[in-house]
Amino acid sequence: MDDNARDYELVTNAAGRLVPTRVNGRPVEPYQGVYAHRPSGRTAAPPIPTCAQYPRDGNKVVADLQTALRRCGLRDGMTISTHHHFRNGDVVANQVFDLAAGMGVRELRWFPSASFPCHEPVIRHMDSGVVHHIEGSLNGPLGEYCSRGKMAGMGVLRSHGGRYRAIQDGDAHIDIAVLAAPAADAFGNANGLYGPSACGPLGYTHADYRYADRVIVVTDNLVEWPCHPWDIIGNYVDYVVVQDSVGNPNKIVSGGTTEITTDPERLRMAETVAHFLDHAGLLHDGFNFQAGAGGTSLAFVKFLRDLLQEKGMRARAMSGGTTGFLVDILEEGMADYILDGQSFDLEAIRSLRDNPRHLAYDVMQAYNFHAKGNSTFMMDAIVLGATEVDVDFNANVVTHSDGKLLHGIGGWQNSLFAQCTILTIPALRRGTPMIRDRVTTLVGPGELVDVVVTERGIAINPRRTDLVEATSHSDLPIRPLRELKEEAEDICGCTAPEAELTRRVVAVVEWVDGTVLDSIWQLPED
Amino acid sequence: MDDNARDYELVTNAAGRLVPTRVNGRPVEPYQGVYAHRPSGRTAAPPIPTCAQYPRDGNKVVADLQTALRRCGLRDGMTISTHHHFRNGDVVANQVFDLAAGMGVRELRWFPSASFPCHEPVIRHMDSGVVHHIEGSLNGPLGEYCSRGKMAGMGVLRSHGGRYRAIQDGDAHIDIAVLAAPAADAFGNANGLYGPSACGPLGYTHADYRYADRVIVVTDNLVEWPCHPWDIIGNYVDYVVVQDSVGNPNKIVSGGTTEITTDPERLRMAETVAHFLDHAGLLHDGFNFQAGAGGTSLAFVKFLRDLLQEKGMRARAMSGGTTGFLVDILEEGMADYILDGQSFDLEAIRSLRDNPRHLAYDVMQAYNFHAKGNSTFMMDAIVLGATEVDVDFNANVVTHSDGKLLHGIGGWQNSLFAQCTILTIPALRRGTPMIRDRVTTLVGPGELVDVVVTERGIAINPRRTDLVEATSHSDLPIRPLRELKEEAEDICGCTAPEAELTRRVVAVVEWVDGTVLDSIWQLPED
Repeated sequence: MDDNARDYELVTNAAGRLVPTRVNGRPVEPYQGVYAHRPSGRTAAPPIPTCAQYPRDGNKVVADLQTALRRCGLRDGMTISTHHHFRNGDVVANQVFDLAAGMGVRELRWFPSASFPCHEPVIRHMDSGVVHHIEGSLNGPLGEYCSRGKMAGMGVLRSHGGRYRAIQDGDAHIDIAVLAAPAADAFGNANGLYGPSACGPLGYTHADYRYADRVIVVTDNLVEWPCHPWDIIGNYVDYVVVQDSVGNPNKIVSGGTTEITTDPERLRMAETVAHFLDHAGLLHDGFNFQAGAGGTSLAFVKFLRDLLQEKGMRARAMSGGTTGFLVDILEEGMADYILDGQSFDLEAIRSLRDNPRHLAYDVMQAYNFHAKGNSTFMMDAIVLGATEVDVDFNANVVTHSDGKLLHGIGGWQNSLFAQCTILTIPALRRGTPMIRDRVTTLVGPGELVDVVVTERGIAINPRRTDLVEATSHSDLPIRPLRELKEEAEDICGCTAPEAELTRRVVAVVEWVDGTVLDSIWQLPED
Repeated sequence: MDDNARDYELVTNAAGRLVPTRVNGRPVEPYQGVYAHRPSGRTAAPPIPTCAQYPRDGNKVVADLQTALRRCGLRDGMTISTHHHFRNGDVVANQVFDLAAGMGVRELRWFPSASFPCHEPVIRHMDSGVVHHIEGSLNGPLGEYCSRGKMAGMGVLRSHGGRYRAIQDGDAHIDIAVLAAPAADAFGNANGLYGPSACGPLGYTHADYRYADRVIVVTDNLVEWPCHPWDIIGNYVDYVVVQDSVGNPNKIVSGGTTEITTDPERLRMAETVAHFLDHAGLLHDGFNFQAGAGGTSLAFVKFLRDLLQEKGMRARAMSGGTTGFLVDILEEGMADYILDGQSFDLEAIRSLRDNPRHLAYDVMQAYNFHAKGNSTFMMDAIVLGATEVDVDFNANVVTHSDGKLLHGIGGWQNSLFAQCTILTIPALRRGTPMIRDRVTTLVGPGELVDVVVTERGIAINPRRTDLVEATSHSDLPIRPLRELKEEAEDICGCTAPEAELTRRVVAVVEWVDGTVLDSIWQLPED
């Protein structure tokens, strides 16, 4: 990003954060408060197609991806979207930009639903100018590349729901969506349930195929029409490409784990969350909850399950990146439904395919804030992690305390709207306090964080007088957040370090409504 | 319609039909040919909503329908849509206009996916000015009311796919969609599968809830969240109303029958169609077909099924208004899938609910011509009826030979795009020839009608040289259409009567692309 080309002012938003007034040339609004912003106008609208211009036999298969890209009119400056259901096992995005490079196309905007370390090759295309910048979650090396100010455009970090919203609202126009599909028919109906690359639901594609000008489905498993369930609906698809592989589902889990943690401290936090819900009176027959696929979350799910059983209760709907753990609970009749936006293991995929109570739902239903409500509001409790939290219950999930951008937002911001949002975070990690006066990057406004659970106690947000009162006579280790902070600082012998950053914006964090919540600042030269 | 207020010219379109240049104040294009029209611009776009303005607990239930209508801002001149899955058993549409009358609202446009004789009470509201006019299929008394020139606005007859297209393209803007649902949760997720009013799929609602400004779901069966399958997606719903009844599924079938015909002539036509497909070499393993729920169609399905079995073949996908007949074929393993847009009996509803191979699909997927293809193009054969056919294979399905408007178009026009479209029509009915020089009203352009099957022989459209050749050595009674016409005229001792009509347009027939295919003219005074 050329400093001389800077076209924005910096203003202080309602959260007291300094944010730019323009992002990649587009005027943006500063964050106004959790519920304050009111959208105006109407949604985006794709061009009206006509059957007269599509094959009379419904067969949209073309020779290869390059042919499809050419027929879609790929040219300089276009926005190309891909989905991340394969996470670190995706192959299609790299293929698209390798092809674009070969075709001599430049200045593309990549608009993935998330990027992963497997996409490191895109750095080369950014260096050479084939890709101008990435708008979407930047995990690992791509995040660091952005943090170091090497990306030609600004990064825009959106939650999953925020990405859907941005497409729907017309903030982000997709020229060509390139959608990998483990099963597809020649008309373009597709799903992620069958074939060698089966990866589960394809809900992150729905905004892409509904709003993009052009849509390419890429599959390694062409099936007879009609391919059902039609997670991708062929009536929106321009071309179908068949190739040897579209992704490696074994790499969906990467760097993380889908095993219950064995770390005693994490186990204790997980158990504490379950006990908190119990003592706060939040458990009931028909309880809805969401928890991630990480080790602590899985441990929580286990404790919760046992607690519900003990009380003779069952859950109604469970959501989260889906694993065999949720499937077990569903199959033993301890819950009515799994709501699945992303499958993490083969058990989850099998269950989604075969169990009518294992439901695929899309990111619109789960998370879109610019809708007439969304499913998260129906969640009785959601358990999330964070990289940092501050004394006002604000939380960070994208940068570390050195300010380096290393993680995407995922559905994290969207999940904050549950009836009770619980963050689990160690009070200290490797000798450094994780509770601070002010988070390095603001991703979750404190007023939506109801409870912080650490290995040293539970802090309840004072706004939640109902929770404070309900647990006031319990034997839970409930303590002020500031006290937990001080205890961690005493142990570490220091406060959390302040990141030393330049005053140059390399990326922004959007709030779920499209306003700008915070800036990511360029790291200083090493 | 006041003659002095006439704001249109009449022009001759590409089919040689005289059509108006404006319809209800909106400029329209004359028909240009089956595939000639190219849409421009982008689709309609509803206002962007925000979760900030919807209940934080997701509960959208309000006291009653009047409250919901008031909160949706019901006022003079608005467009109100309803669906017709209950067909002649609908109660909600009459309720809406009775309430509107009570609220003093006037000049509404009713935009149903179809209207039926049960909606005769709306005539009173048209007489009094509460309803200005109806845009949608006009069956029975409402059609006659329109034919007699009593409706204040022009009728617009659209196919099911054409209605979706009109909403999608922004030709028809819905202010408030009022959608009856046999099962719904408080968030607005809904389906037609469960409860006392279970009626099957709700696919005719999809354009309504996706594009309308405001959406009301009315149910007599409020279920716990999440109501699944979410045929209506709650994220698009503003209010939920719970009342005693929303419709009578026993009246889905009215005037017609879902029994195989016992009429020997009709049985013979049905058998002829099956034999034609066989001799023309169109049958194959994985055959896709569509046939209606009427007596002749059901007989055809039976003959086809037996023929496939005899040949050791099975069907891939079957569609049409669904009945127990298709369910039997699915359950005995003679077909892979039912594609269901409208259920006609309890067996169909049960199967849709329980059989994962019985698929609900919506009118967008089945029929929308302004999409990137649709399912009809994948149909190997479709069997349809007609009120009249002419020597150029043009067909009529909305008026009788006296010019009186009595039937809606349904999916009829959309179905013409199958690989082989077969019309079954008696060469004569009650002493009157049904084959004429020129159809009274043009609804289906002859170039899309491949075969006409009568009780006196089969006529193949000369454009289909492949079918002519394939059957040239068969013993099928293949004859020129003109010869069948003359034979019927000889028997009747007359040609088909010419309707005597005024030169005043009371309704128009849209082609699937939104251009105007023909006009319906006012009947003379009795």
